[in-house]
Amino acid sequence: MVNKKKAIVLFSGGIDSATTLILARSEGFECIALTLNYKQRHSYEIKASENFLKDYNDIEHITFNIDLSHIGGSALTDTDISVPNVPSEGIPVTYVPARNTIFLSISSSFAERYEINDIFLGVNKIDYSGYPDCRPEYIEAFEKMINLGTKRGVEGNKLNIHTPLINMSKAEIILKGTQLKVDYSKTLSCYSPNEEGHSCGVCDSCRFRKQGFLDANIEDPTIYKKSKK
Amino acid sequence: MVNKKKAIVLFSGGIDSATTLILARSEGFECIALTLNYKQRHSYEIKASENFLKDYNDIEHITFNIDLSHIGGSALTDTDISVPNVPSEGIPVTYVPARNTIFLSISSSFAERYEINDIFLGVNKIDYSGYPDCRPEYIEAFEKMINLGTKRGVEGNKLNIHTPLINMSKAEIILKGTQLKVDYSKTLSCYSPNEEGHSCGVCDSCRFRKQGFLDANIEDPTIYKKSKK
Repeated sequence: MVNKKKAIVLFSGGIDSATTLILARSEGFECIALTLNYKQRHSYEIKASENFLKDYNDIEHITFNIDLSHIGGSALTDTDISVPNVPSEGIPVTYVPARNTIFLSISSSFAERYEINDIFLGVNKIDYSGYPDCRPEYIEAFEKMINLGTKRGVEGNKLNIHTPLINMSKAEIILKGTQLKVDYSKTLSCYSPNEEGHSCGVCDSCRFRKQGFLDANIEDPTIYKKSKK
Repeated sequence: MVNKKKAIVLFSGGIDSATTLILARSEGFECIALTLNYKQRHSYEIKASENFLKDYNDIEHITFNIDLSHIGGSALTDTDISVPNVPSEGIPVTYVPARNTIFLSISSSFAERYEINDIFLGVNKIDYSGYPDCRPEYIEAFEKMINLGTKRGVEGNKLNIHTPLINMSKAEIILKGTQLKVDYSKTLSCYSPNEEGHSCGVCDSCRFRKQGFLDANIEDPTIYKKSKK
C-alpha cells in the first residue's frame, strides 16, 4: 500500500471548500479537513461541515475554535452589522479583517506540528473580486512568509499553499465538483440561514451560488427560505 | 491636545515585550497591549501582564484567547513535552509552531478593525538565534503579505510592523528599559514558574534573563525558586 501524502484542507462546508477537499482527495492526498469555528453568525456552517463529511470516512475532521467576534468589524462576526440583502460593491461588509491570514496561520501551525507540506484553500475568482486575502499575489506572499517563519520551512521542508480553484468561476467549480460526485445538497453557502439551516436566497453568497448552478446548467439542490421548493 | 497615533503592542509580560511597550509609549503612541492567552503552560504570564499594567493607566489591555494546546508540538503548549533545564541548541522545543504568524495575524485583524497602522513586537537578537519567526527577513515578509491581504492595506493604509529591539542584546534591552523606568520586578520570563510565580532559574529564558542583568550590570530583581533571594 502506498503511503499517501497528507494535506490540510480548510473546510467551511460551502461549495468552494467542499470541491477543493474532494479535488485534493481525488489527487491522492490523505486529507485532514480543518474547520475554523470563529463564532461566525451562522454556526450552522459547522453542522453542514460535519454532515458533509459523513460520506467520507477516509477524511479526518478537526474543528478549531477561535472567537473572532471579540474583534468584530464584519457582518459575519459582529451582530451590530447586518448581512446585506442587495449586491455589494467593492470590499463587502462580510469581509472579516485578516481572516484568511489567521486561518492559513493556524493551518500552517497544524501542518508544522504534523509534518505536512500541503495546505489547500478554496479561494477563487469571485472571492478575489471583493476580498483582498483571496488574490493570487496575497497567496504567494503568504507562502513566502510562512516558509521563512517556520522551523520546517527554514529546514527546507517547503509548505505549499494550493488554490486549485483560483482561476475558476462558480459554474466551473460546480461542474468540476459534479464530476467528482460532490453532493452539493449537503453544502451551505448562505451568510444568514434560518434556524432549520435553509438559505436566505438574497445575500451575496446565495446569489453567487444560484447563478453558479444556473450557468453550469445543473439543478440547484439548495432549499431557499423564500422559494417554493 | 494632540491626537495620538494608536499602536497595538504584543505583550506577554516578559522583559522584551514590556520594554517594547514602554518604548512605544515613550515615542508618543497611545498603546493597546494585546496579550494572547494561548493556553501556554504558565498562565502566570497573563497575571504578570495584568500586574505590570497597573502602573500605566493610559495603556488599554486586551486579552485574546486562542487555545494552541489543541495543536501542541511545543514544550510551552504540550504537557507531553518537558521544558528543558539545560541550554538548547538549534531551534528549541519551546518553539511554538508558527506562533508569531498567528499572533501577528490576530494583531493585524485588531489593527484593521480599529483603523490602526502600527504594531509593535519585541523580537530580538537572542530570539532569532533560535526561533525562525523572529528574524528580520520573516518580519519583512509578514509586513508585505499583510498589506496585500487586508482591506486597509490595499486601500493604501500601510500596516507597519515595528521591532525596535531586533538588533539589541538582552543587556541592551534591560539598559534601555531601565532608562524608561520599566519595573522589571513585575515582568516574568520563566517558561515554568512555580505556583507562586517564582522563576525556575534554569530554563533557557531564565538563563538569558540572568545573563542580561549581569551583562547590564544591573541588579536582577527576579525571585528564583532555587536562589536564596
